[in-house]
Amino acid sequence: MIQTPYLLFLGDAPDMLACKVAIGIRDWRPRHAVGQMRLPECRADLGLTEMTLEEGLAAGARTLVIGVANRGGLISPAWKEQLLKALEAGYDLASGLHNLLRDEPELADAAARHGRTLHDVRVPSVKYPIASGIPRSGKRVLTVGTDCSVGKMYTALAMDTEMKARGLKSSFRATGQTGILITGEGVPLDAVVADFMAGAVEWLTPDNDADHWDHIEGQGSLFHVSYSGVTMALVHGGQPDALILAHEPTRTHMRGLPDYALPTLEALRDTALPLARVANPDCRVVGVSVNTQHLAEDAFEAYLAEVEDRMGLPTVDPYRQGAGRLVDALVAH
Amino acid sequence: MIQTPYLLFLGDAPDMLACKVAIGIRDWRPRHAVGQMRLPECRADLGLTEMTLEEGLAAGARTLVIGVANRGGLISPAWKEQLLKALEAGYDLASGLHNLLRDEPELADAAARHGRTLHDVRVPSVKYPIASGIPRSGKRVLTVGTDCSVGKMYTALAMDTEMKARGLKSSFRATGQTGILITGEGVPLDAVVADFMAGAVEWLTPDNDADHWDHIEGQGSLFHVSYSGVTMALVHGGQPDALILAHEPTRTHMRGLPDYALPTLEALRDTALPLARVANPDCRVVGVSVNTQHLAEDAFEAYLAEVEDRMGLPTVDPYRQGAGRLVDALVAH
Repeated sequence: MIQTPYLLFLGDAPDMLACKVAIGIRDWRPRHAVGQMRLPECRADLGLTEMTLEEGLAAGARTLVIGVANRGGLISPAWKEQLLKALEAGYDLASGLHNLLRDEPELADAAARHGRTLHDVRVPSVKYPIASGIPRSGKRVLTVGTDCSVGKMYTALAMDTEMKARGLKSSFRATGQTGILITGEGVPLDAVVADFMAGAVEWLTPDNDADHWDHIEGQGSLFHVSYSGVTMALVHGGQPDALILAHEPTRTHMRGLPDYALPTLEALRDTALPLARVANPDCRVVGVSVNTQHLAEDAFEAYLAEVEDRMGLPTVDPYRQGAGRLVDALVAH
Repeated sequence: MIQTPYLLFLGDAPDMLACKVAIGIRDWRPRHAVGQMRLPECRADLGLTEMTLEEGLAAGARTLVIGVANRGGLISPAWKEQLLKALEAGYDLASGLHNLLRDEPELADAAARHGRTLHDVRVPSVKYPIASGIPRSGKRVLTVGTDCSVGKMYTALAMDTEMKARGLKSSFRATGQTGILITGEGVPLDAVVADFMAGAVEWLTPDNDADHWDHIEGQGSLFHVSYSGVTMALVHGGQPDALILAHEPTRTHMRGLPDYALPTLEALRDTALPLARVANPDCRVVGVSVNTQHLAEDAFEAYLAEVEDRMGLPTVDPYRQGAGRLVDALVAH
């Protein structure tokens, strides 16, 4: 578990797009972010209080989170000086970059010398079990997508936030790097060894109160040939009671696969639900989450209404409309 | 690639069941097995020529294969002396045991000193790519099961053997430890990192002659919640042109999951085929392979006839009847 709160390191980010991780933490766990720290070259600004390392410590920060990704996932030499100073000052470091903090000898030495922890959230730190398939108490909802990167994490975070706002028992369960840095814990599922994927999801979503909901972050898609095995492990390891279908209606082909068309929402429902019922016979599809960011202001509501009518399911864009109707559907389940 | 031929080391095997790997090599690649080597305590006998290490070398053996598994997958101290002598005499060692040869300091030292290779086939030795989904030339058949351990590897090996006997172009593509030791190469799919599973299967079954068939060894089952993600990666990474359904009719529950019933062959067909068509729209289910070892001599033919009638597909037990009718169906495809 990563110690909170964080100081968010934006480095020399050329734009806001490079700061996806930091933005996720700011938007979903604002109490975890005491401020932002930038190099002089930085062109991004999250609107958080600007802090030096010392000011961050004084504000309570325990971990400096690398909230920026650069080309190739490298740990930039431009950042190294500040990262070393952070370890010396008493911070742990956390990173979801492809290149690992622990593989940088200077950082590893400094962490050992100062008794600090390097969190490389891209690498599993737990020996996960083989999945047992034994039913667990509590409720679970999994968001499954017609494609990768259609808003599954956003949907799960929005439902968790809405449930907490209503005073309901709720946890977001992170399965990817950004989600883990947002919440401080989770399973980097795409880096888990094949035999232990479903077991890792069981481990992540253990027995809980009967009225507690786990919002499991989805990965990949059952229709994305590169990553469908990861999705399958979520469907079976997660034992979801409810599925939310996620879709991005303007995409012309599967992400990274120019010759693969997206499935329809009907095909996704008819594929995912029977598979989910292998592990949980009571599973139901309870709603649709559409990422309408590329639909015009005067077109998105008509699209949502059309899908809602066609699918017979509450259909929302949680970014534009909130996740209230999805949570209503979960609570009614 | 493991150097052939092999001398098969049976160690102190208490019975034939412990010698599954050695039996597989003897049955499917008899030309790879120059003989067997046993400790005095060994209670198993494969009927191969008994050889010392020196006699094995004289017969051409290049690798001593650990053809026996003991409880816990350990490298037994009782074996160590012979393994060290084998490295000294000029053998490579190959093992599919859970505990790795390379993690035994004495073996690692001896291998380095004598310039020999330790093959731990349970561990991937290749950096596999992310799957591209791009169609490949040549034909591929994947055996998918209602459960784990229902005869998928046996079926694929039997079809490959039959095709080769007919002078057709054919390869068995191993995805598990036993299969890899039988053929000397392959992908230990259950040990591959999640994101690279489908890419590993693409790597294993590359472009080939238009009339060449890859017989891809299946793993797990789409209905086995512990391992379904691995199966899914085979279905999408393998891009199969043909599926064979595999079943064991006397099993009362999914292997290792006492509360999970087996799916019907119809459910397997209706689940696997649409998923396979995502990667290969021309995929068809062409036959059924039934492991009838627990059906009586006077009952198994009636069972096969009933399934054949119900499914409208050639249905055989390749162990009792050979894989001829399955190969007929592939050739007709």
